[in-house]
Amino acid sequence: MTRIEPLPDLLIEPIVRAALTEDLGRAGDITAMACMPADARFEGVFAARREGRIAGLDCARIALRLMDPDARFDVVTGDGADAAPGAVLARVSGNARAVLSAERVALNLMQRLSGVATLTRAYVRAVEGTRARIADTRKTTPGLRALEKYAVRCGGGLNHRFGLDDAILIKDNHVAVCGGVGPALERARASAGWLMKIEVEVDSLAQLEQALPFKPDVVLLDNFALDDLRTAVTMAAGAAKLEASGGVTLETVRAIAETGVDAISVGALTHSAPSLDIGLDAA
Amino acid sequence: MTRIEPLPDLLIEPIVRAALTEDLGRAGDITAMACMPADARFEGVFAARREGRIAGLDCARIALRLMDPDARFDVVTGDGADAAPGAVLARVSGNARAVLSAERVALNLMQRLSGVATLTRAYVRAVEGTRARIADTRKTTPGLRALEKYAVRCGGGLNHRFGLDDAILIKDNHVAVCGGVGPALERARASAGWLMKIEVEVDSLAQLEQALPFKPDVVLLDNFALDDLRTAVTMAAGAAKLEASGGVTLETVRAIAETGVDAISVGALTHSAPSLDIGLDAA
Amino acid sequence: MTRIEPLPDLLIEPIVRAALTEDLGRAGDITAMACMPADARFEGVFAARREGRIAGLDCARIALRLMDPDARFDVVTGDGADAAPGAVLARVSGNARAVLSAERVALNLMQRLSGVATLTRAYVRAVEGTRARIADTRKTTPGLRALEKYAVRCGGGLNHRFGLDDAILIKDNHVAVCGGVGPALERARASAGWLMKIEVEVDSLAQLEQALPFKPDVVLLDNFALDDLRTAVTMAAGAAKLEASGGVTLETVRAIAETGVDAISVGALTHSAPSLDIGLDAA
Amino acid sequence: MTRIEPLPDLLIEPIVRAALTEDLGRAGDITAMACMPADARFEGVFAARREGRIAGLDCARIALRLMDPDARFDVVTGDGADAAPGAVLARVSGNARAVLSAERVALNLMQRLSGVATLTRAYVRAVEGTRARIADTRKTTPGLRALEKYAVRCGGGLNHRFGLDDAILIKDNHVAVCGGVGPALERARASAGWLMKIEVEVDSLAQLEQALPFKPDVVLLDNFALDDLRTAVTMAAGAAKLEASGGVTLETVRAIAETGVDAISVGALTHSAPSLDIGLDAA
Amino acid sequence: MTRIEPLPDLLIEPIVRAALTEDLGRAGDITAMACMPADARFEGVFAARREGRIAGLDCARIALRLMDPDARFDVVTGDGADAAPGAVLARVSGNARAVLSAERVALNLMQRLSGVATLTRAYVRAVEGTRARIADTRKTTPGLRALEKYAVRCGGGLNHRFGLDDAILIKDNHVAVCGGVGPALERARASAGWLMKIEVEVDSLAQLEQALPFKPDVVLLDNFALDDLRTAVTMAAGAAKLEASGGVTLETVRAIAETGVDAISVGALTHSAPSLDIGLDAA
Amino acid sequence: MTRIEPLPDLLIEPIVRAALTEDLGRAGDITAMACMPADARFEGVFAARREGRIAGLDCARIALRLMDPDARFDVVTGDGADAAPGAVLARVSGNARAVLSAERVALNLMQRLSGVATLTRAYVRAVEGTRARIADTRKTTPGLRALEKYAVRCGGGLNHRFGLDDAILIKDNHVAVCGGVGPALERARASAGWLMKIEVEVDSLAQLEQALPFKPDVVLLDNFALDDLRTAVTMAAGAAKLEASGGVTLETVRAIAETGVDAISVGALTHSAPSLDIGLDAA
Repeated sequence: MTRIEPLPDLLIEPIVRAALTEDLGRAGDITAMACMPADARFEGVFAARREGRIAGLDCARIALRLMDPDARFDVVTGDGADAAPGAVLARVSGNARAVLSAERVALNLMQRLSGVATLTRAYVRAVEGTRARIADTRKTTPGLRALEKYAVRCGGGLNHRFGLDDAILIKDNHVAVCGGVGPALERARASAGWLMKIEVEVDSLAQLEQALPFKPDVVLLDNFALDDLRTAVTMAAGAAKLEASGGVTLETVRAIAETGVDAISVGALTHSAPSLDIGLDAA
Repeated sequence: MTRIEPLPDLLIEPIVRAALTEDLGRAGDITAMACMPADARFEGVFAARREGRIAGLDCARIALRLMDPDARFDVVTGDGADAAPGAVLARVSGNARAVLSAERVALNLMQRLSGVATLTRAYVRAVEGTRARIADTRKTTPGLRALEKYAVRCGGGLNHRFGLDDAILIKDNHVAVCGGVGPALERARASAGWLMKIEVEVDSLAQLEQALPFKPDVVLLDNFALDDLRTAVTMAAGAAKLEASGGVTLETVRAIAETGVDAISVGALTHSAPSLDIGLDAA
Repeated sequence: MTRIEPLPDLLIEPIVRAALTEDLGRAGDITAMACMPADARFEGVFAARREGRIAGLDCARIALRLMDPDARFDVVTGDGADAAPGAVLARVSGNARAVLSAERVALNLMQRLSGVATLTRAYVRAVEGTRARIADTRKTTPGLRALEKYAVRCGGGLNHRFGLDDAILIKDNHVAVCGGVGPALERARASAGWLMKIEVEVDSLAQLEQALPFKPDVVLLDNFALDDLRTAVTMAAGAAKLEASGGVTLETVRAIAETGVDAISVGALTHSAPSLDIGLDAA
Repeated sequence: MTRIEPLPDLLIEPIVRAALTEDLGRAGDITAMACMPADARFEGVFAARREGRIAGLDCARIALRLMDPDARFDVVTGDGADAAPGAVLARVSGNARAVLSAERVALNLMQRLSGVATLTRAYVRAVEGTRARIADTRKTTPGLRALEKYAVRCGGGLNHRFGLDDAILIKDNHVAVCGGVGPALERARASAGWLMKIEVEVDSLAQLEQALPFKPDVVLLDNFALDDLRTAVTMAAGAAKLEASGGVTLETVRAIAETGVDAISVGALTHSAPSLDIGLDAA
Repeated sequence: MTRIEPLPDLLIEPIVRAALTEDLGRAGDITAMACMPADARFEGVFAARREGRIAGLDCARIALRLMDPDARFDVVTGDGADAAPGAVLARVSGNARAVLSAERVALNLMQRLSGVATLTRAYVRAVEGTRARIADTRKTTPGLRALEKYAVRCGGGLNHRFGLDDAILIKDNHVAVCGGVGPALERARASAGWLMKIEVEVDSLAQLEQALPFKPDVVLLDNFALDDLRTAVTMAAGAAKLEASGGVTLETVRAIAETGVDAISVGALTHSAPSLDIGLDAA
Repeated sequence: MTRIEPLPDLLIEPIVRAALTEDLGRAGDITAMACMPADARFEGVFAARREGRIAGLDCARIALRLMDPDARFDVVTGDGADAAPGAVLARVSGNARAVLSAERVALNLMQRLSGVATLTRAYVRAVEGTRARIADTRKTTPGLRALEKYAVRCGGGLNHRFGLDDAILIKDNHVAVCGGVGPALERARASAGWLMKIEVEVDSLAQLEQALPFKPDVVLLDNFALDDLRTAVTMAAGAAKLEASGGVTLETVRAIAETGVDAISVGALTHSAPSLDIGLDAA
């Protein structure tokens, strides 16, 4: 099982609080108010309905506690673990209205994050035994980037840039303006921060050849044919890390990995992962 | 084409602003700063890479304008329209750094919302000719509920509750606590607001029979077999609206619709829609 | 006594926190700092100075706890109860500076909400024995809608719409644009969500007649004479709920109620309720 | 007419924006969306329905502009002016959906603030010809203090403290802890900021006598009988400003003013002012 | 030792929370996650590296608790005390990742505030024995005004205005527009609130002479020569407080103080105080 | 002159808006309201009072525009330029109240940022001709990190990490827990993101020797003697970048630079830079 380092609650709480506020609206959970005595208790379990890799239990815990500070939340199957269908993820108990008001938000976050982790795991397993790591992209849900990138880690994936500001990634538009891969890399180097890596995207072996003398940390090989990927690996000879991207699917990813690239980035991990079915069952 | 009423910018802008802030981080788009002259211009088009139903162009416009108040954004294929692969959705021009800094956020939102609209459209088409409407759920992305429910409308779908506070939906846990469907409906009626509808979830024809005398506005038939759905339609005889839910797929939805129910709610519309591939191309 | 379901603290806390921040300003309670030892204790009671219906004790509790997490707050006369002059509402103890810094905010909220509840109660009592419920409007204090509508419930009133988005209410301007009550109702029905009620405002019996065939959930009879209200009740014959509004006062409300309408909406409940005098007394 | 200095838009806009967001909820003005064409125009006027002192037009202008940046808003009868019944306050034109979506928020703020201004004016007129100014208190609506104190100025009133932090006001609890009026004033003076005034509340002539040697800027005479107020004026002899408070009504205020006090503070100005009836009429 | 009244946590917490969020970014403390076991403990002390006046321990405590609610924080040398080099300020223990993640924010705030306090103390000591108090200005760090003014108090200084709204300070531009010091003071008096002091800046003895008959609370003598300051003290004869400002340094401040002015305001206290070196050492 | 890339307004505006709100308080600029006609105009210049490197003009422009959207602001001496005493930085014109209300916030930000730029420039000049770059640290003002790091760039400096999340920096506490520099580097490498650099702090040549085989991107030589720095440069032989830190002053920095290290990080750039004197003069 992947070792998973939790995010600080300080980063998660504002997201969960906003989600609860969005769901409670102006009047709160009027059904629970109408049908549940104010002091009713609820005991139950969050359980997986299908097999998958779990991520997001902290979101559920925080949602619960924001509605009932005295609620209990005991993790059984933690983030980064694989859950069988029916597996209990966590036991919860607390004020019934509070738990049921928090339920949807808790599930929406856990299901999405576990969906991301599960899809990531599938890609990671598909390339097992190769040197390639599966990396995410910036194609994340607005507002949830930190959580979704965490879910990618839960799935065994590798985090690419977290934003526009923590590494330089030169793309075709930049190259065009700078008049070539070389000048673009020179300008990037001149303005890069002290601990900032530089990656450049190339769309041909010719461009790769231009790039290598400028010693980028990483070259992104966009939409390369398998043969070209193999040639690129030979050309780079370890002088730069190589990342493949473009139209990667579960069917094609292994062949790409076997070309010898260091990483394969997959936008679908975060923009198209179906959610994992998880439910809250009364105990 | 579905007639689509735009959301007010006032509701969209905070979401887009937060998304840009998340992506720009503490230092902004360091690649564009390094490689693009401050006064470079960009002209281009947002174009669909695959066929789909479009939703979210306002998000792109607002993202662009937040980075460059003077940017131009001219819609070609608007929200609610079907775009062929390659179809131009909007023409944009503005400061190059601003446009490229806004690009990812604009695409992340448009791709997600168009994905929701496209999946909704598929369900809507599958039930064409029946009386059944396709409805969404509260299984939306935290922070994006208003936008995703808007995308469902762009896909021709029907909006269910927007939150815990705008209608009463009595579920199994509530029924259990109240001691039956009838008492639950009575308590709900007693505390419902003046313009608030009441829906009750039942899991058997027997429960439906108990519910009908209490005149709920809607009965949610959860995981009913097709035969039971047909019987339910006969029993209700129009006295209450009927909604089917539970494990609905594109394969099963038409048969469900043909039982005569009024609506079918599908969580997947918002929690598992793959994003629609859209790109920004320099003109 | 009316059964009152409390709002979740999560919805109240941001309002109270903002109110405290507004009052503390940039330097905090400089008088308490100057004149109260940092470790002085305060014990006292919130007490009604005049007879009235109580609402808002949770606001006081939260204000106190935000200033002193260890403060005690024990409710004696809860929300929804009638307090005699001098009645103790809650006993409090805590750090003296904290309690005194929170005092004004706690009182401002409790006094306003109890004022709303007390005025609502007066209207509710005035129509006792009729079928009419007393309903509020959207004429609430900006930022306090959830709390003021809660106070209306504490007073025994009925909540109308919580906002522009949770029900459709067609008014004269809409009717004018749509070319009549009928077309307006048809357009509303076509775009209404699954659990959304539709109300239409009419200003004459003729308009009511046009409206009824389109089966609105509610018809709002605006500024109808008493005779016309009676006629309207006969015409509707239960097919739609009827709401009367316009220039309602404590003097006129009973006669209106006796016409047989289902609800009477009164803007004054929230926009013109004098505050109820409540004080904090050292014990 | 009182000369009124407007608040900067920067202070008003967040309040108006929050109010619009509260009213629009998650889905916006669904009635306008259903019944108004997206490009319909609205022209009309904000008009007073009853006589009163106007305050809050900037709130209406900002509400309108936040929904339609191109809307026109032309003031006819500005803040601080007296409006006859039917008087036009401002002419507006803009997108019909935008104007109607902003209407309620605009009116809620204008009606409340004009209500405060009108009640203040009544008190001010009642004391005309005396030296006494009518002052407000901190008994304002949470979140609206800046606006309500502005409305008091529109009514011709005087602003007391804006918060706990901009002046020292020693009350009975502080006096009790410090062991007397004198020690309390000494401690206050020792910790007061450079431009901070000091006021002390006394409840008897004896306490006033103790206070005067310590040269407070203002003495608050709480619930003094008229005779005692007169004696206090003689005792103070201009050495400290005198403020009367406690149970002041429109009936009693003139007699209080005629005792010669410098100011009379009235909590009702902000906590119990009925709103002034204002409407938006299509032109 | 100066008696220091702490600010309420409610005012400090948002600043500390924002600072932690700024530092944690989107991914949190990745070094601690990589290198520290999730359950490692940390015990240590905050210690002064150089001699100075301490301010800001509450910021450190709150930073720590926001990362680990169960962390211990025991003050040894509190705000307002003088710490020798090496002196322990507080003992801390808690989760190691939490403590180390909070360390930089805690130190950044404490070092800055202690720097302000230490510089203030130097000025205060320089004028010891004179009647002059050392006052701050509005030249504070955006966002930190409340904290920096608190630090000035920790250093023994006097707080000037907290903002544009809590006192009137008439400067040259205002005088120019009003046509003289007298008319400016008259307009100020007419619009000042009930507990608002008025200060006027003058740049010559002639202007001072014009100002005094209008009885300003304070006159600010800007850039006066020492002789002129002495003359001003004689002219004012206690009728108005006198404040000197302009180009004050530790070298010049005593001579200024000895002229007999009541206060000397020094922008450098907050805009140019070097930070005091403080560290966190493992125990 | 250093080429300076401006930050996007989207990142600056919230800081400036918060600063204005802090200064305006609840009542706004009461002096300007009292003494300036509402329609008075102001024309003037921001001018340097002393020689220095300029940074922060965008803050001034945004402050001005937030108070008066129609104000003019024309840059004369831009960010990154050296200004002589008296040099005009920008010409401004606009509503007088607006300009004067924004003045202090504009100056507070510009003076601080120009102070940082000026101090950075001094360090950069001191090492001219060596290979060493001057780098900043995370010892920035809470809330202003993006701006202060921008000011460091204006001064010719190099940006180190922007936060805890954009690079790995292993310090003594981490090394102690991991059981050595090597194991710490291995754990860091295993969990580092795809574009994340790794730096390790060492406090002796022995530790450096342990570190080099693990190929860190950067080694931080903390408090090394000059001789040891020279030895370190020889040992590393370009295999890792070398950064010196600890007790660096303008007196010692050149000798450190001449040892051949790649960078020297200086906390004082942001935590102890005196502000640069800038003023706003009426034209």
